[in-house]
Amino acid sequence: MNSSSVQSLAGVADGRPVRLAVDCMGGDHGPSITLPACRAFLDRHPDAQLLLVGRPEALAPAEGWARCERIAASEIVEMDDPVEVALRRKKDSSMRVAISQVKPADDGRAPADACVSAGNTGALMAVSRYVLKTLDGIDRPAIATVMPNEKDGYTTVLDLGANVDCEPEHLLQFALMGAALVTAVEGKPDPKVGLLNIGEEVIKGSDTIKRAGELLRSAADAGLLNFHGNVEGNDIFKGTTDVVVCDGFVGNVALKTAEGLAAMLSSFIKQEFTRNAYAKLAALVALPVLRHFKHRVDHRRYNGAALLGLRGLVFKSHGSADAFAFEQALHRAYDAARNRLLDRVHDRIVESLQALPAAETPVPVTKTA
Amino acid sequence: MNSSSVQSLAGVADGRPVRLAVDCMGGDHGPSITLPACRAFLDRHPDAQLLLVGRPEALAPAEGWARCERIAASEIVEMDDPVEVALRRKKDSSMRVAISQVKPADDGRAPADACVSAGNTGALMAVSRYVLKTLDGIDRPAIATVMPNEKDGYTTVLDLGANVDCEPEHLLQFALMGAALVTAVEGKPDPKVGLLNIGEEVIKGSDTIKRAGELLRSAADAGLLNFHGNVEGNDIFKGTTDVVVCDGFVGNVALKTAEGLAAMLSSFIKQEFTRNAYAKLAALVALPVLRHFKHRVDHRRYNGAALLGLRGLVFKSHGSADAFAFEQALHRAYDAARNRLLDRVHDRIVESLQALPAAETPVPVTKTA
Repeated sequence: MNSSSVQSLAGVADGRPVRLAVDCMGGDHGPSITLPACRAFLDRHPDAQLLLVGRPEALAPAEGWARCERIAASEIVEMDDPVEVALRRKKDSSMRVAISQVKPADDGRAPADACVSAGNTGALMAVSRYVLKTLDGIDRPAIATVMPNEKDGYTTVLDLGANVDCEPEHLLQFALMGAALVTAVEGKPDPKVGLLNIGEEVIKGSDTIKRAGELLRSAADAGLLNFHGNVEGNDIFKGTTDVVVCDGFVGNVALKTAEGLAAMLSSFIKQEFTRNAYAKLAALVALPVLRHFKHRVDHRRYNGAALLGLRGLVFKSHGSADAFAFEQALHRAYDAARNRLLDRVHDRIVESLQALPAAETPVPVTKTA
Repeated sequence: MNSSSVQSLAGVADGRPVRLAVDCMGGDHGPSITLPACRAFLDRHPDAQLLLVGRPEALAPAEGWARCERIAASEIVEMDDPVEVALRRKKDSSMRVAISQVKPADDGRAPADACVSAGNTGALMAVSRYVLKTLDGIDRPAIATVMPNEKDGYTTVLDLGANVDCEPEHLLQFALMGAALVTAVEGKPDPKVGLLNIGEEVIKGSDTIKRAGELLRSAADAGLLNFHGNVEGNDIFKGTTDVVVCDGFVGNVALKTAEGLAAMLSSFIKQEFTRNAYAKLAALVALPVLRHFKHRVDHRRYNGAALLGLRGLVFKSHGSADAFAFEQALHRAYDAARNRLLDRVHDRIVESLQALPAAETPVPVTKTA
């Protein structure tokens, strides 16, 4: 997950600095958290460069920072702006300008390696799709995030809400992209993929899920994928597989349900440890233990969802992220760029289209990078 | 939730004893947990009677118990038996015989008021449906359970896996049945119902969900339902609404995801409090606080899912339930029977079919009870 664990991957780093474009105005807090996060990120990665995008006056604190370029954008996509506003009206938004940095420029200038924004998800997906387009062979981009698991590792889950209705072919594409993501960011060469279902048996689930299962088994037979089979909701936290694939409706419900339960339990623990004088004393004694527990399940450490399937890397930070959380999203984007996530996704999709001609191919495949 | 809170409901109790049929052989542990649970249940409810169903030798410990009748059944539906085996081959199973007690008998003997089993869910639903049939106006029975929420109450969620693909009309039926359940078991006259979606706005979600939203709004306009609107996964634990309605695939994933997260966090807390000598000391000091927390989130207290939409009440206990948990399922079944859940579901469905003739009516409505 963190960069040090990934830099041990042989043959990935090519010595070139990694350049990230940052939407400094996005999220609930804007520059007051994005700039300190950028500062901490730069200190951590001597080989990183940042393109800070936002209103010039808001970016003033970053004046004179080494390895930083400030790029002016006059507008801001608000957290409650409808997708249409972000897409059609705010053409000079910090979000859109930041995403555009990832696209090869007409003047031949090398594009940024990835973009990071804490802006609203719907707008970020729509603008990214409009500006960058999808990779050949990908019908629909997906949103992937990680959740902690009992093995003290991470389970990557996708899609988390970009696609409410999915065909089996889309779930196969998600599986391939999720596997590429885990390889790039966690350094696992052959991540295990599970299909989220309501039982382990192959006869379970809707027709779409059953057909997706068949498609994933064919992909596994063709050596494209390490397919484990069906998994259930609890397997996300058991860490049964590295990747869990589902449609965006189900993924979003699972993620929000988990967030809701975590918030409730955390509030209950606080209530119990402040209930009376004895409980408060116990809290003092237990503080180091509770702190360690809190650190272990700190959702800020998992911040940074990947928008996969686009012709460029875009990472989405939680809108309410603080500086620590936003910095984690920057690290994830850095790791993904450093370890060639875009090429890995592209290669897996091309390989699959060649090996599984039965899978729908909406357009002929051409090399995009 | 517990019977004392419900007995205050005016005009519900009719003085007649409540009679429950218990599948004593079902679940992972069978009579070793079901019989002690039945004993504790009888002690708690002087107006309850039990029909204990199972192998005669297994039921021997209950010999001489007052308000108890033992009913022989020679077979057992195993936890991994396919639905077909339960349905077609094991016709003298304790599960089937227990369910049959709820059906009006040919000899005019009054049926039991509800059946409780910890047997496998698929088999229980299939056999219940076969033996009891669905209520007029109900296309598909649903499984409803409660989850704790931040308001220190319960959120009732359905469906939890009986129906993987649902039409909007089914979601309306679930909403009506869920509301009837909350009224019967928790005594709330007009429970608030939410539709599980991936955003609060009405434009969110799949076509089915959007049409279900329209149908639920029509039902609310007709005074049939207290419809809150869309809710998200985290609202289950916030307690935003009393009832959360979703299709069985989504509900099952949400439930299992929550179970998985709870199991992971519980294992992490244990690990942290045993990590070293100091942590173990802290655990001793914090023990009363942790015990109170544990009691508050003890999933055994919520045991007992209702199978709704059948011409009889059937409650499903978790297969791994211990005696305490199984006893809770008996209490829930008792509360539901005592407070006329079956009539309430029936009345709500009839009312809705009269007020919303547009909703599909597969068969003409006749009074069933």
